[in-house]
Amino acid sequence: MPHNLLLAFDIGGTKLAVGIAQIAQFRQTGTFDMLVKEPIPSPGTPDVVVQRLMEIGRQLIANANGQLAGIGISIGGPLDHLTGTVLNFPHLPGWLNIPLRQQLSEAFGAPAWLDNDANLGALAEHRLGAGKGADTMVYLTISTGIGGGVIVNGKLHHGVASGAGEMGHITVQTDGPRCACGNHGCLETMASGTAIARRAGHALSAYPERGGVLRQMLGAQSQPTAQQVFAAAAAGDQLAQELWEETAKYLAIGLGSIIHVLAPEVIVLGGGVAQTGEGLLDPVRRNLANHVFYIPLPSIQVLPAALGHNSAVIGAGLLAAERLT
Amino acid sequence: MPHNLLLAFDIGGTKLAVGIAQIAQFRQTGTFDMLVKEPIPSPGTPDVVVQRLMEIGRQLIANANGQLAGIGISIGGPLDHLTGTVLNFPHLPGWLNIPLRQQLSEAFGAPAWLDNDANLGALAEHRLGAGKGADTMVYLTISTGIGGGVIVNGKLHHGVASGAGEMGHITVQTDGPRCACGNHGCLETMASGTAIARRAGHALSAYPERGGVLRQMLGAQSQPTAQQVFAAAAAGDQLAQELWEETAKYLAIGLGSIIHVLAPEVIVLGGGVAQTGEGLLDPVRRNLANHVFYIPLPSIQVLPAALGHNSAVIGAGLLAAERLT
Repeated sequence: MPHNLLLAFDIGGTKLAVGIAQIAQFRQTGTFDMLVKEPIPSPGTPDVVVQRLMEIGRQLIANANGQLAGIGISIGGPLDHLTGTVLNFPHLPGWLNIPLRQQLSEAFGAPAWLDNDANLGALAEHRLGAGKGADTMVYLTISTGIGGGVIVNGKLHHGVASGAGEMGHITVQTDGPRCACGNHGCLETMASGTAIARRAGHALSAYPERGGVLRQMLGAQSQPTAQQVFAAAAAGDQLAQELWEETAKYLAIGLGSIIHVLAPEVIVLGGGVAQTGEGLLDPVRRNLANHVFYIPLPSIQVLPAALGHNSAVIGAGLLAAERLT
Repeated sequence: MPHNLLLAFDIGGTKLAVGIAQIAQFRQTGTFDMLVKEPIPSPGTPDVVVQRLMEIGRQLIANANGQLAGIGISIGGPLDHLTGTVLNFPHLPGWLNIPLRQQLSEAFGAPAWLDNDANLGALAEHRLGAGKGADTMVYLTISTGIGGGVIVNGKLHHGVASGAGEMGHITVQTDGPRCACGNHGCLETMASGTAIARRAGHALSAYPERGGVLRQMLGAQSQPTAQQVFAAAAAGDQLAQELWEETAKYLAIGLGSIIHVLAPEVIVLGGGVAQTGEGLLDPVRRNLANHVFYIPLPSIQVLPAALGHNSAVIGAGLLAAERLT
């Protein structure tokens, strides 16, 4: 039987995904023959999670036509992509210096490659999504946090210590609130879903007579979600509109700094907050015109992510597929 | 005779430089056989300047051993490096959409390449200076303005519309003073030589009882230069020390944003303000520790430029040399 199959793993904070695909076809389409998604098994320690990944992977191979050629692995934490070691995965217990690439490679008797979910989301969007064909592309995923990945000259750029693409920690509000990272006024601290919720909570406390529509949506909640802020803004709530516009301003300051460094052809925005689509993209593009002048903005496309939640596991598949062909 | 020679031109706001070199040797050493520097001929219009470049170039060729193979050209303004057109050179009159590459190529009957001085400074520092051997390097030139260049994967990165490397227009002071570009609180507007002088002038007006040492240096001047601020700080003037520390803070915020995007191995600081050497580098490195946490700073070197004023003309020579060999 030919070595024609790849396995793709994505380990998230609450869910895991395992896909199997025919390599050649997958490079063209990003479509898995089978894709299994389920909650992270309790208690989420490395041995339990790896054990479950192995079970699912073996089952998928048993039902597939062919033999395994290689494995791509995505995880949402700091790692060393060269050695394939997960340095830290703070969402789950016990994930410190785990040689995940080696473990899965030995378990399946096939070569494996590891990268983080934001980098692999960038790779997937570049190869098969919104950034297809761009020489230089920047990907941001805006959800509870803000992460990202950088493609230069068609290749994923890692930088020293696999540190490139930490777009959430660009400073956008000088001397602003302290970020979990230690810096002040990071993009993540001003414009992530968590940050929008926090800013909205503060605004509702500070202006008791404002935000009527937003308050109605809250019910017993003490703090609105980013989605509620967006919905209230769309329904005409002025306070929510100001909060949303401010979010777009911070994103535009951050993207402006990225643009002045890299001048990418395409910027792709993904993640939960960006699922508002043009509701976010339109004010971001409008605000960019206040921050970028020397580089013609019409030459830079700001686009919604095309691959949705599956971008990391698709990217993991592509990581393997590109090494194998 | 072999086609063994290259010509390198650098057109600045007040000076021009023309160098001639043996290609193979130049790639190794960056040393010109002859290097002519003189003031821009009056009135500085394109025809007068190009005429003078041709005269000097022909003279250098006449005195050299061999034949011309190609030409590298540096200029300090927005340009299209693909077509070799200078879009605008605001320091001199009449420089709008000048096909400089074509003009010099036809005049000398040899291929020519054009790029801007900051990109070519980056190229020179990467090939022969402080960034030698780095996979990813960022170069900033801090003088009256702030410019720069980006090397990724060993190659100069241009981005769309030749727009990459505009590091002076990263936002470092949200809602700060308006920059000449139109944005507010750009790195150039907070930390260039011009900005340091402006901030020092304001501080001396605002605090009439402070800055004694700095005031003594001023004499009849109304506003100190960046060099005077540095000298006064070194001499113990507290106001000057605060101004200098603030400069380092803004540079660290800007470099922090660059680091979070690219994670370069080496950051090279050149230009007049950076000629203070460790006087600037030491507080910049110290301040970086307040802004960068997720990427280990010991893996990123912040170094002084090694090639001084000649980096642009050396870069122009390398631009030609690398295309020709």
